[in-house]
Amino acid sequence: MGRTNNFSSLAFFLLLLILGCSAAPNPKLRARPQPCKRLVFYFHDIIYNGHNSKNATAAIVGSPAWGNRTILTGQNHFGNMVVFDDPITLDNNLHSTPVGRAQGFYLYDKKDIFTAWMGFSFVFNSTEHKGSINFAGADPLMNKTRDISVIGGTGDFFMARGIATLSTDAFEGEVYFRLRVDIKLYECW
Amino acid sequence: MGRTNNFSSLAFFLLLLILGCSAAPNPKLRARPQPCKRLVFYFHDIIYNGHNSKNATAAIVGSPAWGNRTILTGQNHFGNMVVFDDPITLDNNLHSTPVGRAQGFYLYDKKDIFTAWMGFSFVFNSTEHKGSINFAGADPLMNKTRDISVIGGTGDFFMARGIATLSTDAFEGEVYFRLRVDIKLYECW
Amino acid sequence: MGRTNNFSSLAFFLLLLILGCSAAPNPKLRARPQPCKRLVFYFHDIIYNGHNSKNATAAIVGSPAWGNRTILTGQNHFGNMVVFDDPITLDNNLHSTPVGRAQGFYLYDKKDIFTAWMGFSFVFNSTEHKGSINFAGADPLMNKTRDISVIGGTGDFFMARGIATLSTDAFEGEVYFRLRVDIKLYECW
Repeated sequence: MGRTNNFSSLAFFLLLLILGCSAAPNPKLRARPQPCKRLVFYFHDIIYNGHNSKNATAAIVGSPAWGNRTILTGQNHFGNMVVFDDPITLDNNLHSTPVGRAQGFYLYDKKDIFTAWMGFSFVFNSTEHKGSINFAGADPLMNKTRDISVIGGTGDFFMARGIATLSTDAFEGEVYFRLRVDIKLYECW
Repeated sequence: MGRTNNFSSLAFFLLLLILGCSAAPNPKLRARPQPCKRLVFYFHDIIYNGHNSKNATAAIVGSPAWGNRTILTGQNHFGNMVVFDDPITLDNNLHSTPVGRAQGFYLYDKKDIFTAWMGFSFVFNSTEHKGSINFAGADPLMNKTRDISVIGGTGDFFMARGIATLSTDAFEGEVYFRLRVDIKLYECW
Repeated sequence: MGRTNNFSSLAFFLLLLILGCSAAPNPKLRARPQPCKRLVFYFHDIIYNGHNSKNATAAIVGSPAWGNRTILTGQNHFGNMVVFDDPITLDNNLHSTPVGRAQGFYLYDKKDIFTAWMGFSFVFNSTEHKGSINFAGADPLMNKTRDISVIGGTGDFFMARGIATLSTDAFEGEVYFRLRVDIKLYECW
């Protein structure tokens, strides 16, 4: 009897082990997990308009033949490319102490409505965070929220991958906007 | 005897388990698998040339000092940057109903021959597909086929990674080209 | 006694198996491993300055309203975008036989100091290496070393991910610079 019980519990153990092993991550089909890291930041973009060179954090550097590089062009700014070095803050206040810099570019890429494509990094060098998070993707900016990809990271964010949900927290004319960035990492090393 | 047999089969089970566990995916060395998802699309690029503003889906927004932004420059268009919002279709017919938009940029980056570098997204919002696939990579466009990277995805393509094989399906002068994109995802969540 | 011993060793085996299974790679929390592949290259960038069209491997294609595309602009070149097709060499000699091409763009994105954002590929087509490695990230180029992301790869570098550590190996005025690129791949398929 005792021996039988022992074998039974062994069999049960083995079953658990088999289930446990087959639940090991499969790169081809994985259940959508919880983020392994989640971070929320704001960044602030002040576009140079010919009069604000002291405060501007961004400048138009490309435009289509029918536009120029001082004023965002018509047709929903189609073809304007903007380079930026924007302060990152923890709250939605432009004057809060920056915790890092958002650096890269966006380009307006549709004639009918506002949409953009972005490639940029969050660069941190504080006691809180050291390293960078790299982003790329389409930003259909008239949508309340939209997702872009976290394509990599360095330092504290070594090899990170995930999704960043963008939302426009404020905009003032064609000079200032503030984006809320909700970063959800699903690969953390 | 029976007991010995039981132990033997247990040992055999254990061996299988050990093999099973060591076959769990190893991020450092994986055999090249079959794609977990495969999709084929076409997209259509009509570059603004000063006369086609109604039909154009793309515009030159950067050029070297020796060029302009209305006509693609000499030296294999070296230094021209083009922003696009191109219709995606399921077949090679420009007039088929678009199933999404290809949005982003390419830039010609070689003096001797045509080569480009691309960063763009496929953006879907239909009953069939919702979400985006993000691409980046070198496009040596004189080659019959060439591979770029799928660097991320959102929505239905959450966290996707893979390879997209591009081939030029048609081109007409310096105004229109059509790319066939064979997307092979090897990471599907 | 013998039976008990058998059960003990079985229990020990099971313990090992449980530990072994739970050590299977977990996409949510992985120990930082050794690179699965490591490669060191140099690449050489000669910017067009109006006088060197024969030797130039790069050209300014975007600039802010206050700059032009022949001379890198003031304010730490803020807003200049450069497209390049640079030779890759195994050592730090510009005249060594190239083993591939570095193709893509960088843009200067800060007014106060030199920083850049880069998107580019290493393209190989030799007996040694065939395929491409794709990079993106912030390059705070005044730092001795800085890390960007390997966001994908094709051919021999199929699905690669990792980190590339950049260091400026030489620069001459505003015409020539040479970068050392120490590529550490942590995902090799």
